[in-house]
Amino acid sequence: MNMLSFPPAMRRLINELSKLPSIGEKSAVRLAYHLLLRDPHESKLLASALIDAREKTTFCSRCFSLCEGELCAICADPKRDQTLLCVVEKPADVFVLERGAGFRGLYHVLHGLWSPLRGVGPERTKMNELFVRLKQSRELPERTPIAEVVLATGATVEGDATALYIAKTVNEMGIRATRIAQGLPKGGELEYADELTLTHALQGRRTV
Amino acid sequence: MNMLSFPPAMRRLINELSKLPSIGEKSAVRLAYHLLLRDPHESKLLASALIDAREKTTFCSRCFSLCEGELCAICADPKRDQTLLCVVEKPADVFVLERGAGFRGLYHVLHGLWSPLRGVGPERTKMNELFVRLKQSRELPERTPIAEVVLATGATVEGDATALYIAKTVNEMGIRATRIAQGLPKGGELEYADELTLTHALQGRRTV
Repeated sequence: MNMLSFPPAMRRLINELSKLPSIGEKSAVRLAYHLLLRDPHESKLLASALIDAREKTTFCSRCFSLCEGELCAICADPKRDQTLLCVVEKPADVFVLERGAGFRGLYHVLHGLWSPLRGVGPERTKMNELFVRLKQSRELPERTPIAEVVLATGATVEGDATALYIAKTVNEMGIRATRIAQGLPKGGELEYADELTLTHALQGRRTV
Repeated sequence: MNMLSFPPAMRRLINELSKLPSIGEKSAVRLAYHLLLRDPHESKLLASALIDAREKTTFCSRCFSLCEGELCAICADPKRDQTLLCVVEKPADVFVLERGAGFRGLYHVLHGLWSPLRGVGPERTKMNELFVRLKQSRELPERTPIAEVVLATGATVEGDATALYIAKTVNEMGIRATRIAQGLPKGGELEYADELTLTHALQGRRTV
């Protein structure tokens, strides 16, 4: 693509936009034209929203989800089930589950998975903070003891390894560890499912 | 989607991102997570690139394409064919043609099409500026007379109407007006082409 046909500042904007996930050079060009041709006020709103969100958004000191201030809205909500803790890989996973999976407990965001193949050890994740949190939930009088840890990492090699690793320690602490089910996705047909999915679907079968 | 589960500043960012073309709420959420979790410097670069491009980018005083300063790079380039003028609807069309259509003349951006059905008259476009420009190209000693106007508006009702409308005046000025060809797109199969496309393809047939 001949980027030289764009004015320099526009070229810089296209370059920054194309660094975003799932935005290729063509989409970046289209977005840049849109941003430059619409009401200037709208573009300023986007720029300031970005700066503002960057400055205000931090990690919850308890669950490491995104929040503003010390505790996130979920950790601060007394109506959530304080005995149930769902462990996920990244902040976006919390949102995905909150979208309508019906989970009413608390979360813990690992910010990574244990990945020996890529040289990422458990210490690079918030796993240790999880164990400290579980311990504190039983020792600190103002906390409610956590009774079950739901391991909701993805159904990948690293997701499974991380879940197993955590489950071992959690069980040693005398706390119940559960893993989310693997099987056919809703609407999924057997014809299009891979063997491992079918194996898990069979193993996870339940009486109806 | 339960937007309340996001911190307020993040919600504002998602809201601004979802105003962009072809970015739905799900993509906006994904983009916001990316923007908040990557290097803060990168997000600042994007915000400043946006503000900077908005401030510096203007319209070329001759062709109304996007540029910085008075004249765009194409209008200021003496190596372009000054006798050939291509008329397009919007600034992005210039880029599309420059990407590799092999056009070596100049452009004129209308910033709209004549659309009687939507109550948009020719005066709302840069059509009058086109006629003035054509006149000046023959009267001002420093300009080269334009010999041909290529009407490259889209193959839509409005694109055709605008092209016909301009062609009439251009012809009256004694200047040649041409319309870009309509027919099968490259790789297009007859089986999937609509009747109008086939009609145009037949009418535009050429000796081989």
